[in-house]
Amino acid sequence: MIAGIDLGGTNVRIGVINELLEIVEWKEALSEVEKGYDHTIQVIFNLLDQVKADYHIERVGLCAPGPLDHKAGVLLDPPNLKGWGYQPIVQSIERYMSCPVYLLNDANAAALSEAATGAGEGYESVWFTTVSTGIGSGYVYQGKLIQGEKGCTGEIGNMIIVPGGYRHANLNPGSLEGYASGTAIGRIAKEKYGIKGGAFEVIDRAQKGDPQATIILNSTLEYLSTAIANIVHTINPSVFVFGGGVMTDSEYLLPLLSEKVDQRIYGSLQGTIELKAAHHKNEAGVLGAAVYASQQPSQPSIVRGLKS
Amino acid sequence: MIAGIDLGGTNVRIGVINELLEIVEWKEALSEVEKGYDHTIQVIFNLLDQVKADYHIERVGLCAPGPLDHKAGVLLDPPNLKGWGYQPIVQSIERYMSCPVYLLNDANAAALSEAATGAGEGYESVWFTTVSTGIGSGYVYQGKLIQGEKGCTGEIGNMIIVPGGYRHANLNPGSLEGYASGTAIGRIAKEKYGIKGGAFEVIDRAQKGDPQATIILNSTLEYLSTAIANIVHTINPSVFVFGGGVMTDSEYLLPLLSEKVDQRIYGSLQGTIELKAAHHKNEAGVLGAAVYASQQPSQPSIVRGLKS
Repeated sequence: MIAGIDLGGTNVRIGVINELLEIVEWKEALSEVEKGYDHTIQVIFNLLDQVKADYHIERVGLCAPGPLDHKAGVLLDPPNLKGWGYQPIVQSIERYMSCPVYLLNDANAAALSEAATGAGEGYESVWFTTVSTGIGSGYVYQGKLIQGEKGCTGEIGNMIIVPGGYRHANLNPGSLEGYASGTAIGRIAKEKYGIKGGAFEVIDRAQKGDPQATIILNSTLEYLSTAIANIVHTINPSVFVFGGGVMTDSEYLLPLLSEKVDQRIYGSLQGTIELKAAHHKNEAGVLGAAVYASQQPSQPSIVRGLKS
Repeated sequence: MIAGIDLGGTNVRIGVINELLEIVEWKEALSEVEKGYDHTIQVIFNLLDQVKADYHIERVGLCAPGPLDHKAGVLLDPPNLKGWGYQPIVQSIERYMSCPVYLLNDANAAALSEAATGAGEGYESVWFTTVSTGIGSGYVYQGKLIQGEKGCTGEIGNMIIVPGGYRHANLNPGSLEGYASGTAIGRIAKEKYGIKGGAFEVIDRAQKGDPQATIILNSTLEYLSTAIANIVHTINPSVFVFGGGVMTDSEYLLPLLSEKVDQRIYGSLQGTIELKAAHHKNEAGVLGAAVYASQQPSQPSIVRGLKS
């Protein structure tokens, strides 16, 4: 049995996954990250106690918000987990569980879950993108993650879409996240037309035919389609899978996005780019983390060269 | 023994490669593509006759300018090989040689040659880019090409760098190739300052301190660095390798490019992105095509489902 842990800013979720990649046990609690690292690691231990009693756990996969260093097994000061940077989270859980623990970022975990048993099942390569507060991606090739030399595969929130454009947070001026994330949609709607209520309100109004909201949604999808077209011409994945709050109404949004992608790719590729909605919801992180752990050589962190 | 064939608009080059990936025989001739497909295929046969006499060739790798369909084994009307679209080139050479023939595009072949025995040797993943008349790339991961669902991995000439910008040939408005290829540098230099002589003249003048040429080269490298940064945030390859005429003076150009890439990536990545000059010159296509053929299952085209 493998346990998957999804450590988020709001919840900690833990699942036990069998060999068929089915979730056979599920536990969750508030992560209460504002109370600090020591508190939340105890929340994780408490949940693990509940599954240790009933299942023999051989490995643990742990996903968390980036940026993180998956090789070193540490978080690098993620904005939603203040004070967690460089804490020995992998080693702590390893000691508690007496089994190897593997860390990866949450977008990568979701990508793996979709490739394994979701919308990307059966495709040679899967490009997963979550459009939410921020924008992040994961890339699965022949069933395995390609994380890149420094683990920055899929950091497309920092892709330059509008050279010299708006600067969002510490990203590049004109970054994708600054123009097409939920945060960006909310900001632009408010600045341009005084529309409050964020991305959901904009999408809802656009769907009802509101002209101002339609203009905003349209330009958002143009920015996003520029990024998708750039990914097509960079790595040409077999399928694009979309998750995240902004993409919730995928039946409305994906056909609009697809049309704009086709306007930005080679004629010979038009009509060949598949865009699909993510299959997994709250279980994506837990499942993907477990799949990731199952694919690693079974070695504790000390053997893998992690400092304790 | 494996033969590599590099079919170009000017020359056809054929090499025989041994198990150590050494070139043990070399033949070349003018391709004379203006005389048509039937003529040039005879040029290829004549060169093959010369190597068949001395070596037992088990497989052939064939590289040619794109666009092409590597799975179907046909060229798709490449601009420099008019009238070659959908000709059964793979099957013709297979019949002549009585062994399997594998087709790939020339940027992919060069990428493989660099990964196997060039500047990308020993890296997990290699992103090769040629900056010449056009711009093309190839991506090698763990020693093998990832060509993508429709073979369009590395078609970064069509990446959108300046939304709504200059339209070059049939590419996207604001494409990388329209702003940073040799053709683009020549065009911009002429339009902006009346500088004739193309990209080489611009680079030469910039190196000598000419302020106008320096402005043009600087903006070219900014466009190119935007593309490189986008690739970093998409797939984060272990090393970038540059070939092509425009990059000939790599000792001058790569440090300038590297500086601009670092300005467009996450702080944690700055200083980690390796840019290197290609090692192989005229032999890159032949060598890469042979490496590619060596990696395929030994099956004639009919078994692989190619129409004859």
